[in-house]
Amino acid sequence: MKRTALMTEVGRNWDEFHSTDVSRKLPFFSREGRLYDCLFSQQFDRALLNHLFAVADRLRSVTQAKAGADAVARLLAHKRAMLYFVQPSTRTFLSFLNACHILGLKTSEIRDTSTSSEMKGESPEDTVRTFSSYVDLIIMRHPTPGFVEKTAWFMNRVKRPVPVINGGSGKDQHPTQALLDVYTLHRSLPGGPEGKTLVMVGDLKRGRTVRSLSYLMKNYPGVKLVFVSPPQLRMEADILDFLKRHGIPYRETDDFASVMPEADAIYMTRIQDEHDVAGESKSLDLSRFHFRAEHLKVIKPTTIIMHPLPRRHEIAPAVDEDERAVFWRQERNGMWARAALISYIFGVDDQIRMA
Amino acid sequence: MKRTALMTEVGRNWDEFHSTDVSRKLPFFSREGRLYDCLFSQQFDRALLNHLFAVADRLRSVTQAKAGADAVARLLAHKRAMLYFVQPSTRTFLSFLNACHILGLKTSEIRDTSTSSEMKGESPEDTVRTFSSYVDLIIMRHPTPGFVEKTAWFMNRVKRPVPVINGGSGKDQHPTQALLDVYTLHRSLPGGPEGKTLVMVGDLKRGRTVRSLSYLMKNYPGVKLVFVSPPQLRMEADILDFLKRHGIPYRETDDFASVMPEADAIYMTRIQDEHDVAGESKSLDLSRFHFRAEHLKVIKPTTIIMHPLPRRHEIAPAVDEDERAVFWRQERNGMWARAALISYIFGVDDQIRMA
Amino acid sequence: MKRTALMTEVGRNWDEFHSTDVSRKLPFFSREGRLYDCLFSQQFDRALLNHLFAVADRLRSVTQAKAGADAVARLLAHKRAMLYFVQPSTRTFLSFLNACHILGLKTSEIRDTSTSSEMKGESPEDTVRTFSSYVDLIIMRHPTPGFVEKTAWFMNRVKRPVPVINGGSGKDQHPTQALLDVYTLHRSLPGGPEGKTLVMVGDLKRGRTVRSLSYLMKNYPGVKLVFVSPPQLRMEADILDFLKRHGIPYRETDDFASVMPEADAIYMTRIQDEHDVAGESKSLDLSRFHFRAEHLKVIKPTTIIMHPLPRRHEIAPAVDEDERAVFWRQERNGMWARAALISYIFGVDDQIRMA
Repeated sequence: MKRTALMTEVGRNWDEFHSTDVSRKLPFFSREGRLYDCLFSQQFDRALLNHLFAVADRLRSVTQAKAGADAVARLLAHKRAMLYFVQPSTRTFLSFLNACHILGLKTSEIRDTSTSSEMKGESPEDTVRTFSSYVDLIIMRHPTPGFVEKTAWFMNRVKRPVPVINGGSGKDQHPTQALLDVYTLHRSLPGGPEGKTLVMVGDLKRGRTVRSLSYLMKNYPGVKLVFVSPPQLRMEADILDFLKRHGIPYRETDDFASVMPEADAIYMTRIQDEHDVAGESKSLDLSRFHFRAEHLKVIKPTTIIMHPLPRRHEIAPAVDEDERAVFWRQERNGMWARAALISYIFGVDDQIRMA
Repeated sequence: MKRTALMTEVGRNWDEFHSTDVSRKLPFFSREGRLYDCLFSQQFDRALLNHLFAVADRLRSVTQAKAGADAVARLLAHKRAMLYFVQPSTRTFLSFLNACHILGLKTSEIRDTSTSSEMKGESPEDTVRTFSSYVDLIIMRHPTPGFVEKTAWFMNRVKRPVPVINGGSGKDQHPTQALLDVYTLHRSLPGGPEGKTLVMVGDLKRGRTVRSLSYLMKNYPGVKLVFVSPPQLRMEADILDFLKRHGIPYRETDDFASVMPEADAIYMTRIQDEHDVAGESKSLDLSRFHFRAEHLKVIKPTTIIMHPLPRRHEIAPAVDEDERAVFWRQERNGMWARAALISYIFGVDDQIRMA
Repeated sequence: MKRTALMTEVGRNWDEFHSTDVSRKLPFFSREGRLYDCLFSQQFDRALLNHLFAVADRLRSVTQAKAGADAVARLLAHKRAMLYFVQPSTRTFLSFLNACHILGLKTSEIRDTSTSSEMKGESPEDTVRTFSSYVDLIIMRHPTPGFVEKTAWFMNRVKRPVPVINGGSGKDQHPTQALLDVYTLHRSLPGGPEGKTLVMVGDLKRGRTVRSLSYLMKNYPGVKLVFVSPPQLRMEADILDFLKRHGIPYRETDDFASVMPEADAIYMTRIQDEHDVAGESKSLDLSRFHFRAEHLKVIKPTTIIMHPLPRRHEIAPAVDEDERAVFWRQERNGMWARAALISYIFGVDDQIRMA
């Protein structure tokens, strides 16, 4: 069995494991052909995406009626989840929390390590193992890159493993954000992303979401990508290399207005100036990368406008009530996509699809 | 339809809407003849009060037995509430939280904005809209006057509205406190407040609860009010004007002892010295406005003693175990009255009454 | 009835009550022959321990299957608990919280008094009584010695009492930790603790857990105790006196290695240097009181290794995966033992045993 083999080979030592290529690590985080821990957006292939979207769609419709909602809330009423969010993130936290509530999971919250035993000199591994003792699922957001992966690696090696979902780990991975972004493209673009033109705008250099989303586009033949940013905030070379390798056409520009008419989806992002080294974003004229009410006349009647939120000035509030502004629905899609993922990890996804 | 008309007229602009007289705004916060958002004590008329009290009474009795409690907890098990309490208030928070639990609602808590996306530069409107994405009800306490109303106004204008309950908004409104106060008068005074003498004592100038309660007395013919306070903390003119306009008899005094024998209900309050400009409360001799054990002999055998709590020295602890001291029951009444209100907003109130 | 008599005698005045010997106070915290408040490890006699362990064992097995877990979660779905933990303790908090979730209790959390009404000048008694208004059970951890007992004493005297469980009160008592420790001995030692040799290692002077555990050994005939510590951290005289009085054999040593071969259970503890007056622990050579991987060859094949956690360096991580290292199971035992205790307090224990 692949998983066991990998454990033997590289699973023994964390540093060795961590530096292994992601594709080789994936079997370690699966059990019986099914994703067990959700850590990387690379874990989502087309079949799994389609399946999770079908489950999410069904969850939404079934829970409209009280009888359906009650039935869904019984599916995992015997399970307990822990939301270990020691990095501020109310949005993702609430999305996961309510996803758990939809499925009936009981939840424990850790929001602040200062209340934990860490202050008594306990190692982070012991702390996590302690917390896992009481629950059946860990959903974790952590400021340290690699910490969530390390937790999952570690929890796979103990006698009472529990699955781990990555709710955002440092700057490296936030797979359920990628999941909800693709779900939004799938749901709001007629026919889904295939063959569509996706325009990504803003801080492409440091935006985790646009990076993951670009990556996942390999699952959708015919997608064309347009990257719109100031020269200083261009998409990084590793993603561009990836796109070339997979034959996904892209181009780069700093002229947002010129590409608006051809876009099927516009993915706006916030300037991540918290990552500025010396306030360099302040000197940029960012207004050229904003979507204003007047642009609603320029885009196609079917173009959708997305944003991972929170926003600052990238999208004028006047845009919000236009039918094509889907970012509020995108946010809510996150809750449903996460509920679908959790149901899948616990193997009750088919009960939802058949409901 | 009135609501739509108001939206057209004054609903477009917040500042314009906010400055409109409360009575004109009420339709905006109702749907299909039923209160939708609960923001002002002015929303409670006699019929609604009677109905909510009947529901609260029934909730208490039905939930005494496990079968009844379980049935009630199924009523709203498919709904999710968010308690957005960014102002310290454990008392009101717990009261609402457990009211939700009684009805089976799943709950999310926001207690501290420092963990929210507000720090990433998001507008308060976006933050609230985000949080609302995941839930079916917002219960909000906020330090800024008008903020809760603005939230409800705003949420009424988006595609996915959710009802908003005011859990205390700045110094202006705390309608469910008024609700529980009247419920206590209704429950603990034989025949309810009608025709009774209600003595309010303490900081009448700045006490939100005595102001709201005075207002609601217009629903009860024959009520006589006596305001007992130091001259510096007398009831404000706006309430006195209101009472005159509605023909509700009142008088003012600073001699507490003299009015004790005639009181049917004594409503004690705390000096709100957190609102002192320059420590002016400190110079007052407040002991004359305290209720001490010896006063138990002066009041009638049926007089009830209320207090919105927390108290400091206004009521001696020795008074607590007297049958006429109802302030602990008053506190618990809050949980039942709030549960009744929530059941009403979601339209399951009649299922409780018929249970 | 004893309880009433005690209330009359010493129950009137807290200071008088508090200074009464524990054995005389116990009836005050029982109702109808059943423990009502859980405050002292002295409340656990052999019959109650056996009963609670049987309930805990049954809980674990019944909840393995979804149908059983769902049935157990209905037992107390009509009850509400408050976890009042104003002293940092994530471990004990999560253990109790999930114990409540297993039984279906709805939970409210108080983690931080700064959000409470205490800041408005309310007395601690009023605050606790307020919080109790909304719930059916208080689980409390508090930094002030005696505060939890005072709460239970006080709550027994009001019109609407609710049971109180001590989740750790100052340095004096942490009865459910003692409960889970004995449960672990019961579960992991064939035949239970009777006639076994129990070696306690580390900071015996200030370790609350070793003190309580020593005390509870009076319930198990034939137990032999060995206390291993640096001379500066020896077990206190009060416990040694207790052991002498009850004829429980013990000896003291600072040579850990020499007693390893005879141990049936080794109970490791952390040096509680937070209680150092002037950093005196730093000068001690503690490595002689650590359990290292090489010691696994020295102990018997059936010896179990316990630790109340969190640990620092007392047990090498390499020891964790040995079958005899039971401290992770010990931690999880806490959740089950606490669930058993709660079920007992509410009188649904027999429904679990018969399930």
